[in-house]
Amino acid sequence: MAKARKQPRPKAETPKGFRDYFGPDVTERKAMLDKIAEVYDLYGFDPLETSAVETVEALGKFLPDVDRPNEGVFAWQEEDSDWVALRYDLTAPLARVAAQYRNDLPFPYRRYAMGPVWRNEKPGPGRFRQFYQCDADTVGAPSVAADAEICAMLADTLEAVGIPRGDYIVRVNNRKVLDGVLEALGLSEDDENIRQAVLRTIDKYDKVGVEGVWELLTKGRLDESGAFIEGVGLSMEQAQIIGQFLQSRCEAAAETIDLLAQMIGESARGQQGVAELEQIAKLLEAQGYGPDRIVIDPSVVRGLGYYTGPVFEAELTFEITDEKGRPRQFGSVAGGGRYDDLVKRFTGQEVPATGVSIGVDRLLAALRAKGRIGGEARGPVIVTVMDRDRMADYQAMVRELRAEGIRAEVYLGNPKNFGNQLKYADRRGAPIAVIEGGDEKERGVVQIKDLVLGAKIAESATLDEWKSQPAQFECPRTEMVAQIRARLNG
Amino acid sequence: MAKARKQPRPKAETPKGFRDYFGPDVTERKAMLDKIAEVYDLYGFDPLETSAVETVEALGKFLPDVDRPNEGVFAWQEEDSDWVALRYDLTAPLARVAAQYRNDLPFPYRRYAMGPVWRNEKPGPGRFRQFYQCDADTVGAPSVAADAEICAMLADTLEAVGIPRGDYIVRVNNRKVLDGVLEALGLSEDDENIRQAVLRTIDKYDKVGVEGVWELLTKGRLDESGAFIEGVGLSMEQAQIIGQFLQSRCEAAAETIDLLAQMIGESARGQQGVAELEQIAKLLEAQGYGPDRIVIDPSVVRGLGYYTGPVFEAELTFEITDEKGRPRQFGSVAGGGRYDDLVKRFTGQEVPATGVSIGVDRLLAALRAKGRIGGEARGPVIVTVMDRDRMADYQAMVRELRAEGIRAEVYLGNPKNFGNQLKYADRRGAPIAVIEGGDEKERGVVQIKDLVLGAKIAESATLDEWKSQPAQFECPRTEMVAQIRARLNG
Repeated sequence: MAKARKQPRPKAETPKGFRDYFGPDVTERKAMLDKIAEVYDLYGFDPLETSAVETVEALGKFLPDVDRPNEGVFAWQEEDSDWVALRYDLTAPLARVAAQYRNDLPFPYRRYAMGPVWRNEKPGPGRFRQFYQCDADTVGAPSVAADAEICAMLADTLEAVGIPRGDYIVRVNNRKVLDGVLEALGLSEDDENIRQAVLRTIDKYDKVGVEGVWELLTKGRLDESGAFIEGVGLSMEQAQIIGQFLQSRCEAAAETIDLLAQMIGESARGQQGVAELEQIAKLLEAQGYGPDRIVIDPSVVRGLGYYTGPVFEAELTFEITDEKGRPRQFGSVAGGGRYDDLVKRFTGQEVPATGVSIGVDRLLAALRAKGRIGGEARGPVIVTVMDRDRMADYQAMVRELRAEGIRAEVYLGNPKNFGNQLKYADRRGAPIAVIEGGDEKERGVVQIKDLVLGAKIAESATLDEWKSQPAQFECPRTEMVAQIRARLNG
Repeated sequence: MAKARKQPRPKAETPKGFRDYFGPDVTERKAMLDKIAEVYDLYGFDPLETSAVETVEALGKFLPDVDRPNEGVFAWQEEDSDWVALRYDLTAPLARVAAQYRNDLPFPYRRYAMGPVWRNEKPGPGRFRQFYQCDADTVGAPSVAADAEICAMLADTLEAVGIPRGDYIVRVNNRKVLDGVLEALGLSEDDENIRQAVLRTIDKYDKVGVEGVWELLTKGRLDESGAFIEGVGLSMEQAQIIGQFLQSRCEAAAETIDLLAQMIGESARGQQGVAELEQIAKLLEAQGYGPDRIVIDPSVVRGLGYYTGPVFEAELTFEITDEKGRPRQFGSVAGGGRYDDLVKRFTGQEVPATGVSIGVDRLLAALRAKGRIGGEARGPVIVTVMDRDRMADYQAMVRELRAEGIRAEVYLGNPKNFGNQLKYADRRGAPIAVIEGGDEKERGVVQIKDLVLGAKIAESATLDEWKSQPAQFECPRTEMVAQIRARLNG
């Protein structure tokens, strides 16, 4: 084996676009995933965990003539073999699983999945190349009752993780209705390019407003940076009808549906879409999901090309303050829809499927922005080391504390400098430090330092209070655990 | 955008060496990770989650002159930039983090991490290229009190996940002792090649026995397949002393340590190792970890080159039956040790560190092999669809059940064939199916089918019992939830 040459020191850095999560970042996300899983489980969904790596073929994003198929994904070639890639979402692996195990799984197959996905995109502020998704999908359920259920579950889930009713809205639309509107406008369903261009334009509605959409659908528009965005080339009349379509959301679902029915003309596809929306609205209403939770909103399109029917999106409606102190809407935290063609890629048979994906990291950011999570995690009780030869005694103390379920540790750094031990306790957010020197040992007592109270006193104490040191007291060694427990609960 | 050419259907397959985890596989692992995290937390360890991707430089396994550094890891080159790779363990990322955040983290830094790691190795039966690890490490604690604590925590953790005392043993050794023995044998510490060869040989002790070790350390040995493994070239006398070293584990730690002290002669390094083992043994004994849980065992070396002092390994001592029906020992499920040089790679400063890694998937396999986990997960209550126009009624039923915390779902497949609905309920492991046809609706009742009881009766019922159908009964719609709850709890 060749010996390594002397090298310069490696840089201790996360790769560009990736990050590390510490302490509460990890436990808060875990707590959220646990709560989401609880709701998904209650609805009868089973967990599935696929591997991070899929064949590029199964991910199916790529053209056959690209040598290095890493557009948007992290991909590499196996030795003399296939290209593989990190999954970029949890839907593509599900489609693969539904096809691979089609003879073994119960259908409809309800599954949930949670875990990281990877995107080979340019990282930006707050945009990372690895992030969590949390999906629930029903594969093999043709009826829109499955879509309605997903929407209801999404609302329940948001409330379960701590978004109160009124602070979110689930918006539902149906791709077929838009198809119908385009058909009624004389834009043939066959002209996929125009349809996609219209979809992409509508997706910008939230940003550019209805007049922006008019411009983009017709002759084009100068964007904020001054660049000219070419138009789709529709007539102004056509663009206005699409604008009207986007704005046809009413308080009551039935009204919205009436408006839509007028816009689709004779289009069979449009009529099917309206009927589906009507059915979804009825099912949800029957279960008590009113417009305070779920609403029919034609402006929802969802970017992804693979949706074939109902689409939905959950939006947080409260304002937060951005980095520059400006108020802004938080926006979308989850989305999904029906995709009847994804499994067909593998098997040739159409398999109806519908599902939702929650952007867990965004949802966490929202809860943090609202101050609903993100308190400092409580650190362990720190038993300090006054005499390094009595380590066994100190270990016995933490052992007793842990046996009572109290998080505790002995200071394991160099004990020489006692100040460093207290500094450490402070950095760990320790609520209490325990001190047992030779004198205390002899007298059968320990010193208990209440660091939480100590910090409070340090902020506001008078000199006398300061001197009286109420935050530190002595107690018999035998009462140590009880005294600490009382302080922690108090 | 170019349009994709018509392609053959992609294969629905996991990439070679990867697998999918369904239902209980996921929840059982999660439950185990939760229990482990609870113990780690109690000991004062904080969670850390690094990204799956690291720079190859930070992973630091590679020679600078290799063009494609994918030996053992999955690596790829970023566009016009660095090589990156999937992490192959959780220790290398920790070393990177400890260096990167050295000014912000509290030291000693106690962290735990759990998640998948990836190995680009030839897959085999039961050997996958993605698997879970679950690590706890203390960085910045020079004293072996930190190692002792990790060993104690490892024992606690194994018991917490369901391995009773007596079914596991934590074996502890110290690399320095072996170095001392080699030094006493006249094998200079500088001759790293010989030292590594001896380490590798000792690692095979469990497989080849002491005589095999003698052969391998001296003139070589024919292995099972008939291939000749070259020997290390020691004299038989040297080999026998090493053999003696390997077998010097006694019931009482103090006896083992006495034996070791005799073998290291004047070696300062050996003496340091023995003193450290003695200290570890004393600390553990003081806390009540006797030889039924933790034992000093000189035959433990751990393969990894980076360990510098204490090393430890947890082994399950019960027998399981392998695929061919033969009894065998289950073997190692966790291992670790002290590695004082890993962080130094980045900073130039020595940072003492010690930790353990639990092979979660192996531990799960052990618990399954012993039948301690792996009961079928209970499926949801299935509300069948007798009349597809009354979907809202059926949804109301599952809603009521869920509100009581009962997992439930409406059948969302094509409801035409009622037999398919019951087959589905069976495949889901549903305990109960609910039936409400037009007749029941009119009379204000529902039929409740106890599928668990039904299955029992089907196995052993007489014709009369069969006819009387005690597994299916009618109850008022208003009592449905209460009746189902009673059956589920009964």
